[in-house]
Amino acid sequence: MIVVLARLAIHPTLTQQFLDTAGQLVLASRQEPGCLGYELLSEGEGRYAFLERYRDPEAAQAHRKTDHFRTLGRAMGPFIDGPLQVIQLSGIDERAEAGA
Amino acid sequence: MIVVLARLAIHPTLTQQFLDTAGQLVLASRQEPGCLGYELLSEGEGRYAFLERYRDPEAAQAHRKTDHFRTLGRAMGPFIDGPLQVIQLSGIDERAEAGA
Repeated sequence: MIVVLARLAIHPTLTQQFLDTAGQLVLASRQEPGCLGYELLSEGEGRYAFLERYRDPEAAQAHRKTDHFRTLGRAMGPFIDGPLQVIQLSGIDERAEAGA
Repeated sequence: MIVVLARLAIHPTLTQQFLDTAGQLVLASRQEPGCLGYELLSEGEGRYAFLERYRDPEAAQAHRKTDHFRTLGRAMGPFIDGPLQVIQLSGIDERAEAGA
């Protein structure tokens, strides 16, 4: 299982256009077979983050090759203020975690 | 709804003790009434993160006042290498997100 947190800042005057486009990306991404969760979250002060969850690394890669990711990602470009920060995490075997 | 990503590095020689203690914190936290999700994830190279989800800000605060958080948090202290980074995010009304 793979979790991705993609953090970004948005130009304040373009917030609603961003939310409209982001909403489309959220809805389309959730339809992907390997996508276990996809949501937009706010960090406040014009900062947002996509929290994404995939069945495996292959599903995470497949997401980045979808038409909706490419098209909507490009459309969002002008709204974004500065670089993205992408944090990728992987699940840990719960038994190992609990010292079983 | 509140999401927290608490990122930390672990001294490599203390990994299993960390995983044992972290596993107890995960299991205990999931029992909290306002906790919607609590998991330990790996970022690789000795870096881990707790991904936590709460019903509301009050539930997120209540977590930090629980005995298990205080006790196990203190127990984990010696395993942690450097400062924690805590990213707190809040849910966005999905209708606003989809431009409804």
